[in-house]
Amino acid sequence: MSSPLAVHTLLELHGCDPALLKDAEALRPLLLGAVRAGHGTVVTEIFHNFSPHGVSGVIVIAESHVAIHTWPEHGFAAVDIFSCSSALDQVKIENCIRLGLRASKVTRRAFHRGQAEPDSPETSEENGGQP
Amino acid sequence: MSSPLAVHTLLELHGCDPALLKDAEALRPLLLGAVRAGHGTVVTEIFHNFSPHGVSGVIVIAESHVAIHTWPEHGFAAVDIFSCSSALDQVKIENCIRLGLRASKVTRRAFHRGQAEPDSPETSEENGGQP
Repeated sequence: MSSPLAVHTLLELHGCDPALLKDAEALRPLLLGAVRAGHGTVVTEIFHNFSPHGVSGVIVIAESHVAIHTWPEHGFAAVDIFSCSSALDQVKIENCIRLGLRASKVTRRAFHRGQAEPDSPETSEENGGQP
Repeated sequence: MSSPLAVHTLLELHGCDPALLKDAEALRPLLLGAVRAGHGTVVTEIFHNFSPHGVSGVIVIAESHVAIHTWPEHGFAAVDIFSCSSALDQVKIENCIRLGLRASKVTRRAFHRGQAEPDSPETSEENGGQP
């Protein structure tokens, strides 16, 4: 197995709109729209509100999955984009989510999945919403 | 935000039983049993068979999520255990999945989620099924 089977991006989104982060019904269309903008094929999805607040959402796509977990009290969301297809535009999905959540800062780590040996993580960081 | 909000473990399982990896109906109870053995509280779950083969499964738990994507043709499964609770026994879940899939080799990477700056990944590797 010489090449990776999938690319998995871990995003930490800080400074997000807390009202959005506690509303599964607002996050569902935001995430679904982002996935579709990135040419993802939605298979099924789950969004769940936790008590007292916070949302977990997972969209299973033909290309693997996109997941979000939110901490409204910290203005924070953890997002995963896991894709076995190079046709999925992960950057587009990330940008849609970042803008939709009004994140002020995003930290990104990307990893190959499906290799015998751990790869070197590629890490980058950027300010959300800045050109 | 000084301490992480969650711990995310990425597992690469090699040498798994290909018959299991192509059968969503076999993987569902295996993964659910592993989550419950690790004291996870299941909220909902999705398991989907892809054509011609391969399964994507996600279990949303009160503690966040457990996900699997399989490549039967490579005897390979990628598993994620994402938990915001230290009460979730990630090692127990990993061991149940590893043994259930009859993996010959497991690579593990664990990351903190929800910190302003990227942490150093903790990486380890072990042979599956060996004491």
